[in-house]
Amino acid sequence: MDRRSFNRRLLAGSAAGAVGATSLSLASASTATSATSSASALRVAPAGGQVRHLRLYAEKLADGQMGYGLEKGKATIPGPLIELNEGDTLHIEFENTMDVPVSLHAHGVDYDFANDGTKSSRSHVEPGATRTYTWRTHTPGRRADGTWRPGSAGYWHYHDHVVGTDHGTGGIRKGLYGPVVVRRKGDVLPDKQFTVVFNDMTINNRPGSASPNFQATVGDRVEIIMITHGEYYHTFHMHGHRWADNRTGLLAGPDDVSRIVDNKITGPADSFGFQIVAGEHVGAGAWMYHCHVQSHSDMGMASLFLVAKPDGTIPGHDPHHPAGERAGSKPSAGGHGH
Amino acid sequence: MDRRSFNRRLLAGSAAGAVGATSLSLASASTATSATSSASALRVAPAGGQVRHLRLYAEKLADGQMGYGLEKGKATIPGPLIELNEGDTLHIEFENTMDVPVSLHAHGVDYDFANDGTKSSRSHVEPGATRTYTWRTHTPGRRADGTWRPGSAGYWHYHDHVVGTDHGTGGIRKGLYGPVVVRRKGDVLPDKQFTVVFNDMTINNRPGSASPNFQATVGDRVEIIMITHGEYYHTFHMHGHRWADNRTGLLAGPDDVSRIVDNKITGPADSFGFQIVAGEHVGAGAWMYHCHVQSHSDMGMASLFLVAKPDGTIPGHDPHHPAGERAGSKPSAGGHGH
Amino acid sequence: MDRRSFNRRLLAGSAAGAVGATSLSLASASTATSATSSASALRVAPAGGQVRHLRLYAEKLADGQMGYGLEKGKATIPGPLIELNEGDTLHIEFENTMDVPVSLHAHGVDYDFANDGTKSSRSHVEPGATRTYTWRTHTPGRRADGTWRPGSAGYWHYHDHVVGTDHGTGGIRKGLYGPVVVRRKGDVLPDKQFTVVFNDMTINNRPGSASPNFQATVGDRVEIIMITHGEYYHTFHMHGHRWADNRTGLLAGPDDVSRIVDNKITGPADSFGFQIVAGEHVGAGAWMYHCHVQSHSDMGMASLFLVAKPDGTIPGHDPHHPAGERAGSKPSAGGHGH
Repeated sequence: MDRRSFNRRLLAGSAAGAVGATSLSLASASTATSATSSASALRVAPAGGQVRHLRLYAEKLADGQMGYGLEKGKATIPGPLIELNEGDTLHIEFENTMDVPVSLHAHGVDYDFANDGTKSSRSHVEPGATRTYTWRTHTPGRRADGTWRPGSAGYWHYHDHVVGTDHGTGGIRKGLYGPVVVRRKGDVLPDKQFTVVFNDMTINNRPGSASPNFQATVGDRVEIIMITHGEYYHTFHMHGHRWADNRTGLLAGPDDVSRIVDNKITGPADSFGFQIVAGEHVGAGAWMYHCHVQSHSDMGMASLFLVAKPDGTIPGHDPHHPAGERAGSKPSAGGHGH
Repeated sequence: MDRRSFNRRLLAGSAAGAVGATSLSLASASTATSATSSASALRVAPAGGQVRHLRLYAEKLADGQMGYGLEKGKATIPGPLIELNEGDTLHIEFENTMDVPVSLHAHGVDYDFANDGTKSSRSHVEPGATRTYTWRTHTPGRRADGTWRPGSAGYWHYHDHVVGTDHGTGGIRKGLYGPVVVRRKGDVLPDKQFTVVFNDMTINNRPGSASPNFQATVGDRVEIIMITHGEYYHTFHMHGHRWADNRTGLLAGPDDVSRIVDNKITGPADSFGFQIVAGEHVGAGAWMYHCHVQSHSDMGMASLFLVAKPDGTIPGHDPHHPAGERAGSKPSAGGHGH
Repeated sequence: MDRRSFNRRLLAGSAAGAVGATSLSLASASTATSATSSASALRVAPAGGQVRHLRLYAEKLADGQMGYGLEKGKATIPGPLIELNEGDTLHIEFENTMDVPVSLHAHGVDYDFANDGTKSSRSHVEPGATRTYTWRTHTPGRRADGTWRPGSAGYWHYHDHVVGTDHGTGGIRKGLYGPVVVRRKGDVLPDKQFTVVFNDMTINNRPGSASPNFQATVGDRVEIIMITHGEYYHTFHMHGHRWADNRTGLLAGPDDVSRIVDNKITGPADSFGFQIVAGEHVGAGAWMYHCHVQSHSDMGMASLFLVAKPDGTIPGHDPHHPAGERAGSKPSAGGHGH
């Protein structure tokens, strides 16, 4: 399966262990179409409430890094994208194929203390062992006291919490992290999804010379899931595209006062996401995205969001002679965005 | 008075100089109950408009640090929590018991230039001297020109601005800072309050081995006041709990588009606050809270939010044999959260 | 033209090349008056839709720094303020008077890939050469698929992207940056505007001993455009004044849940803006504004927002004997804020 051309619709109804899957989407099978769309069909998230099961493996990679994967021998950095709808429960049968203890700690979702993924809660996994982590999510609603309880929807993430130190500093550094998206009923679904993790001085643990490009076609609804890890602060910048600094990254309507940004400061374990219409108002191009801390971009925390014309050509990007580009002839990284 | 079990209701009608008080609440005496609450009683902030008086002391502590206190010999780090309702005025009779000049500079509240707490405004206090600082607050409303004027409500703070340097770098480093909460009429009141200050590489100026635990019972409405000081950026993370990234930390309702977060980047003099229902959706546990900059947590910027079951037990936490915990048998720090 | 007393109304209908202009305002000629204002007249932005032309020069300054200017020999740091209304198009005839290639890369506005200002898009300008950059802006509205498309309104900026490195690290360091404000129809217009750029350890590339003061009179509606560049994170703090952390920096009304702040963490290429009523609730004074990272303020990232009484006097500020001030007898920097 070409990771670059990952299409979430292929996963509709797929079993969690489907061959080659690099993400788990619980939304696909029952994706709804918005009643508010007119000219073009807008797909939106359905109500949650499903109970799903997933197998996940922690593995050492050939280059000494570590990754999470949905199948043995197929770990990736970042790990697989896990998508849930508010109300869903996910049981993750997690196997540690490595020779050191490892864990799975999640941000944003609900789990009791025994699923915290920390040593102090004794919820890590010894080498060769398997355990099940259970994550739950919930819809928003009104509490008995009248206050408003937020739902679980958000752009979240998971990571190891025990390799190297009790905070998983070694595991995170080597690649043990991945994205989680929890959607609310009615949230707009994207056409393509890409995950960008600024981890120490890398993007997705790749050296600057191999930082990942992403590709879409003008008009695609592209979702970016942005996560930071490690030691440094960064500023995430995209050329030619911008988003709302709120829960969804999309303005709710004309009264939404959220700041529109194309650059955002982030620190370790921060995460946010947004959707952009590729090339909207600006057209096709080999648009840079990069950390805007000057030394970081200069040292390679920069790559390309390749937005193609309908005929497939990309201004400023000749895949055979990409001389005008910063980092040479890198293949597009793709994945669901990895 | 057990600082851990601080109950703001005990302060109802208390004189500012009440023995042992580690906070000043102007809200308590006339706390209202929300008309919107149904099953359980929700306490909300009343209208402000009171004129209150407070004595505050700057002191050297036995260990060479410095603190603010409501009584001589009882300074704490952080200093006492000062709570106001929009419209209140506070006169602080401030005495410098130390041998160096010191000041009181506040964020968020209103004061004329002569109360700025800076050397350039000549509003610092010489050793042994006393002066009165006056802080005012105001409700929101419409200006004559039709624009909307914000109220003073917010999670603010105060700190020295003269010890060591003209920006109080020495005073802040040694502990001269504290929280201020200004509430709007109708703002939800918490059951318990804890202040977390990431100051340089410490939490509340304590070494990592003694960083403060906080304790609550499942269902308690807990307010966290989070302040950063010093030199470094940090990311504040709580396990198992999350909040809205807006004024109150609570969603106003289903249309509030604020991002829900469990991790937030902060820098010196940033402050924010929020309320969580202890253990909501996740239950009891010895939940970590920590800076998520990996080296910072590894070096000790991490501690526990202890959420007890109604019977008092805390999963993962045996107060007599807390072997599973990071930092050993630390007493809970408590205070109004110090 | 006294840069300190810059009055945007003087630019109404001015040609882009007007002598001494340090900013371009496309709003002025047709500035509207709000129907909602009562006692005092509130000026608001008109609808956009104009096509304007501007000449801009990149120049070396006498002290070895570099700047953008609207006229030859008049480059400033920051460069000229460029103001647009949503819907406007701006053609910038840009001349490189320097001996190294330079470019103009903008945040927030729309431009096709050939106007990106990067080497990879071949949109930089060789020494001695001229080219036209075209920026477009757009109003918000509903897309065909029913989602809400944000408008271009925001506090943005432009900078070089090629001097020194492919990310313009050298150009930015030397001063090649400036502010862009795009307004929505009905946005409130300010009386005075100041731009503050935290660039590495300087404010507006000035040494700490010469960091810029800003001056206004109590009641002036002052707009601050805050931009960060370079290598470090900072926290922007103002004494005695605060703003809403949203698109405009102004609360939309009583239901706007945006946090009110007087301190905000920022990183390179972040930008935000807000309006304050000078001295509102606090009166006149030589109010400090500074980076709140302690070592940064101690090393000089601090200066004064001078708020005068109607009679021109400023508490804490004697222009002939400013002994009480941090940085001595610096002239006010002014400009539209430079």
